[in-house]
Amino acid sequence: MRMSSYFLPTLKETPSEAQIVSHRLMLRAGMIRQTSAGIYAWLPLGWKVLQKVSQIVREEQDRAGAQELLMPTIQSADLWKQSGRYEAYGKEMLRITDRHDREMLFGPTNEEMITDIFKTFVKSYKDLPRNLYHIQWKFRDEVRPRFGVMRGREFLMKDNYSFDLDAEGARLSYRKMFLAYLRTFARMGIKAIPMRADTGPIGGDLSHEFIILADTGESQVFCDKQWLDMDVLADNPDANGDLKDFFTKYTSIYAATEEMHDAAKAPADLVTARGIEVGHIFYFGTKYSAPMGAVVTGPDGQPVTVEMGSYGIGVSRVVAALIEASHDDAGIIWPDQVAPYKVALINLKADDEACRTTCDGLYARLQDAGVDVIYDDRNERPGAKFADMDLIGIPWQLTIGPRGLKAGTAELKRRATGEKLELPLEEALAKVMA
Amino acid sequence: MRMSSYFLPTLKETPSEAQIVSHRLMLRAGMIRQTSAGIYAWLPLGWKVLQKVSQIVREEQDRAGAQELLMPTIQSADLWKQSGRYEAYGKEMLRITDRHDREMLFGPTNEEMITDIFKTFVKSYKDLPRNLYHIQWKFRDEVRPRFGVMRGREFLMKDNYSFDLDAEGARLSYRKMFLAYLRTFARMGIKAIPMRADTGPIGGDLSHEFIILADTGESQVFCDKQWLDMDVLADNPDANGDLKDFFTKYTSIYAATEEMHDAAKAPADLVTARGIEVGHIFYFGTKYSAPMGAVVTGPDGQPVTVEMGSYGIGVSRVVAALIEASHDDAGIIWPDQVAPYKVALINLKADDEACRTTCDGLYARLQDAGVDVIYDDRNERPGAKFADMDLIGIPWQLTIGPRGLKAGTAELKRRATGEKLELPLEEALAKVMA
Repeated sequence: MRMSSYFLPTLKETPSEAQIVSHRLMLRAGMIRQTSAGIYAWLPLGWKVLQKVSQIVREEQDRAGAQELLMPTIQSADLWKQSGRYEAYGKEMLRITDRHDREMLFGPTNEEMITDIFKTFVKSYKDLPRNLYHIQWKFRDEVRPRFGVMRGREFLMKDNYSFDLDAEGARLSYRKMFLAYLRTFARMGIKAIPMRADTGPIGGDLSHEFIILADTGESQVFCDKQWLDMDVLADNPDANGDLKDFFTKYTSIYAATEEMHDAAKAPADLVTARGIEVGHIFYFGTKYSAPMGAVVTGPDGQPVTVEMGSYGIGVSRVVAALIEASHDDAGIIWPDQVAPYKVALINLKADDEACRTTCDGLYARLQDAGVDVIYDDRNERPGAKFADMDLIGIPWQLTIGPRGLKAGTAELKRRATGEKLELPLEEALAKVMA
Repeated sequence: MRMSSYFLPTLKETPSEAQIVSHRLMLRAGMIRQTSAGIYAWLPLGWKVLQKVSQIVREEQDRAGAQELLMPTIQSADLWKQSGRYEAYGKEMLRITDRHDREMLFGPTNEEMITDIFKTFVKSYKDLPRNLYHIQWKFRDEVRPRFGVMRGREFLMKDNYSFDLDAEGARLSYRKMFLAYLRTFARMGIKAIPMRADTGPIGGDLSHEFIILADTGESQVFCDKQWLDMDVLADNPDANGDLKDFFTKYTSIYAATEEMHDAAKAPADLVTARGIEVGHIFYFGTKYSAPMGAVVTGPDGQPVTVEMGSYGIGVSRVVAALIEASHDDAGIIWPDQVAPYKVALINLKADDEACRTTCDGLYARLQDAGVDVIYDDRNERPGAKFADMDLIGIPWQLTIGPRGLKAGTAELKRRATGEKLELPLEEALAKVMA
């Protein structure tokens, strides 16, 4: 993308309404624009990150055997009356009356709807297990929306639902998602630690929150120092096995939110930190399947009420959490895996014929090689260009100027470390193409 | 995807509530499930087609220089009061009151919101032209929703908006989208004919509808027989040129909806057909930019109200329209470009060891080669398997049975023509991998 024609409205000033760093940086980096209280438009740069995060979530769901569908945003109140949650949900549910005076709502979650879809079509134990997910916008009418997309009203969520014949199957489904979640966040370049959690309004008897550590996190958390060295991608447990050893290992190392923390049980090597919740998984048995009649015929011909779990990732919230976990005074530092662009190509002197020709050529080569590249071809001061690229957090900055060009070199900067190298042009190019 | 574990609830009976063929076939093929009147969940097979259609739309928007963002579904009523459309829109707008009694609505279109975003950030003629698009769910509270996703209430739409300094620029933006639309539908394997249209409630003085011909179409249309042989992908006009010759050529060949048809101007070689509207483009000058104050500083330092156009494709509607245009008594016939899977691998005898081993091997090879393949590994009658694959419309059916296997052959059927060939296994495989 050429900056000269990119809709990327970066801001020099820090917006006064933003109280946390991710909100400030997302506004300054031209990623989002508030359109109503707690409701945001995702501008091109923000949208690109949101898509990359969504894609990693999708790939790990698919890998774990979940199947993608899409449920609508608007639901009928009738479904929620069946489960008994319509009144219970309170004012956070955005209630709507349509032109025929039917009670509708903007879905805050989808246990009821997916159970209804499931029971319509699945009648036999032979069609179990099933795990269905979607990535869809939800709405919670927060009384005081704040902190940007961290606690917005309209937010993007991946939610999925598992259906099993018995508790043993449901617990295997739970372990598969436990692994998928660890892998999902690890692939985004951040560590999320699963912490045993209260089940709250979703219900059930087994639940974990996935918490990202960030100095600016919303709540206090505690974990064994061992967690900092755990690497699920390296461990790579067999996703087709029963995952019992893996689950035991990852749930026996201490990790707790403030509410669940028990100093008496905590290890000596305890880390006290701030955290941000980005995912939450639940096993809740027949809480929804029983009242809604999700029953299949079992192997013995008798009816069986299916066992369910649900699993959520706040996809739009993850974008903000990534920034809370990875930034400095100059701006965002995107992990490579979710960066909107891998390489920032900076032409230091856009009105210099040699610089322009070289940069245009490099831009074409990077694009041809399939590298996501943003090209600053604007006629601006070098300082403004560097500041913009630091702000939007592109992992590699490849800078071409008249002086270097004469010597056949380029400057290559790594955003995360600040390390700068003066390299022969082709060598610099090879490095960012690797 | 293995059918044995796929959430693909095909129906043998024709649902009585469905009045048109696409609605019937989408229900029977397990693509959609109605969750409230005019509101649908997209089940995995339907979701896959919707994603493929969306991706072609996206690629052609990007190719034409439009930039993707995402605006929220819920909008503030205030914006619509500025443009004067809040009252005018009537009961089709889903109006919502939030917990703080603020007037909100589920967006039916986005002229107001994008104009507001644009004017916040773009202040100079130097940042023009701009063309911004999103693919987002919209809501129109139809009094009598029907025909499945063809006239649903919650529907997926690609809408984009162009901003130019003057009418000449705006007309070039219009021609670029005119080309992008022709290319978009051609790439989906269908012909959409642009027809001069009334501008209706959007306003403006230049507008075209894009109409797909289908015997079961919703309205009568008329066009010159020449249209049937036009091929925009072969013509391949230079997208970076002024597109004037191209636009003149494609707008001078007669094509008209019933409302615009003028028998006196019609050519001798007139085709009378049924059609389905899948896209609509508008140039409306300053209709929104003037009341909403979208003004930039011009080259001479004077303020200029920007010239706008808007462009829509009913993405979810396109899926239904493709089926209306391409089906037979046995089911859907997907054009290759939008088929959910390219190849259906059918194991005729799932409990035969040799058949199973061979099919498992073929499935792995097709997947490794990146071919989208659905594998019927179920223990079902051959007739049921063929019927399902015909119903869901997969372009190639590759069938392995015990008899053929002994002779080293497979049966390859082309869904569109019904042509069946008995081929050596490797030859059949090479054909579907090509």
